Amino acid sequence: MKTITFVLFAVLALGADPEFNKDGELVRPKNYREWIFLSSGVGMNYGTGDLPFGNVFVEPSAYRNFTETGRWPDKTIFALELRKPATEGSINKGGKYQTSLIAVEAAVKDTARFPDGWGYFGFNGNAATAKVIGTSGGCNACHSKNAAVEHSFVQFYPTLLEIAKAKGTLNPSYKP
Amino acid sequence: MKTITFVLFAVLALGADPEFNKDGELVRPKNYREWIFLSSGVGMNYGTGDLPFGNVFVEPSAYRNFTETGRWPDKTIFALELRKPATEGSINKGGKYQTSLIAVEAAVKDTARFPDGWGYFGFNGNAATAKVIGTSGGCNACHSKNAAVEHSFVQFYPTLLEIAKAKGTLNPSYKP
Repeated sequence: MKTITFVLFAVLALGADPEFNKDGELVRPKNYREWIFLSSGVGMNYGTGDLPFGNVFVEPSAYRNFTETGRWPDKTIFALELRKPATEGSINKGGKYQTSLIAVEAAVKDTARFPDGWGYFGFNGNAATAKVIGTSGGCNACHSKNAAVEHSFVQFYPTLLEIAKAKGTLNPSYKP
Repeated sequence: MKTITFVLFAVLALGADPEFNKDGELVRPKNYREWIFLSSGVGMNYGTGDLPFGNVFVEPSAYRNFTETGRWPDKTIFALELRKPATEGSINKGGKYQTSLIAVEAAVKDTARFPDGWGYFGFNGNAATAKVIGTSGGCNACHSKNAAVEHSFVQFYPTLLEIAKAKGTLNPSYKP
């Protein structure tokens, strides 16, 4: 039974290359919650206000490649899931925990598709697809300037940061 | 290449039943970071002070079983990873992100091994094994009294809470 369950899980995990529709929009990744978790932060969003949690996941085969090389293979896809925080509930009286989904964002490495190799996407509400956020949105500029490895914020993913240091793949421009 | 990488990943994910040594101590799970992430909180620890982040992972086949039934199969293992928070680093100036590992804890469902079906473990530092925390430690009392599903705090795992509601498996004693 465990083997059968695992095979089902494996099949689900396999078909996880980024998918684009005929208009070049990214199809919302359906099973990103079953990808590899990289880290979570709180209040790290671009604005101010409700200070959501952000959970970052990466597709498993890209993760495996990173553990071996310290670099991201072409077709890597990340998901950033934003969730509302709560402080009062059940036995929790002080800390913060996660509740309802606010938004899902994605980053894709596709050197043939994007001018600097990476594209960024935001799925509004339950949107099934998302257009790439153009360079005027600032995603590309900030990632290319500040990311620790390629255009990814590995400085906030503690287990991957150790790998990048060991493999010597930190960007020369990266400032801790 | 992607398939080969995936198969390697699958083999790693497969051997994840809880393992006990001859003295009945739990062997530290090696690849829990590649299990299914359930949620993360901050400052939800039992004491006060540095308010760590806590990341909760569950072994993939147990997760798959839960998505189908709303219940945990025997031999389910959870890992709770505690990490230090940081607020100043790289481009982050206000939010909190995760840094070094503080501790790893585990919960195991094994109805033949534990009086109330569940055992709790804390791996001090880099300890390779951990003794079960006896009933005087309070883990069993608090989990059995306050958990939303069986003895697990599904109230803090938003995607699983929806499943438990849909499957009708919330504990009658659970208070949101």
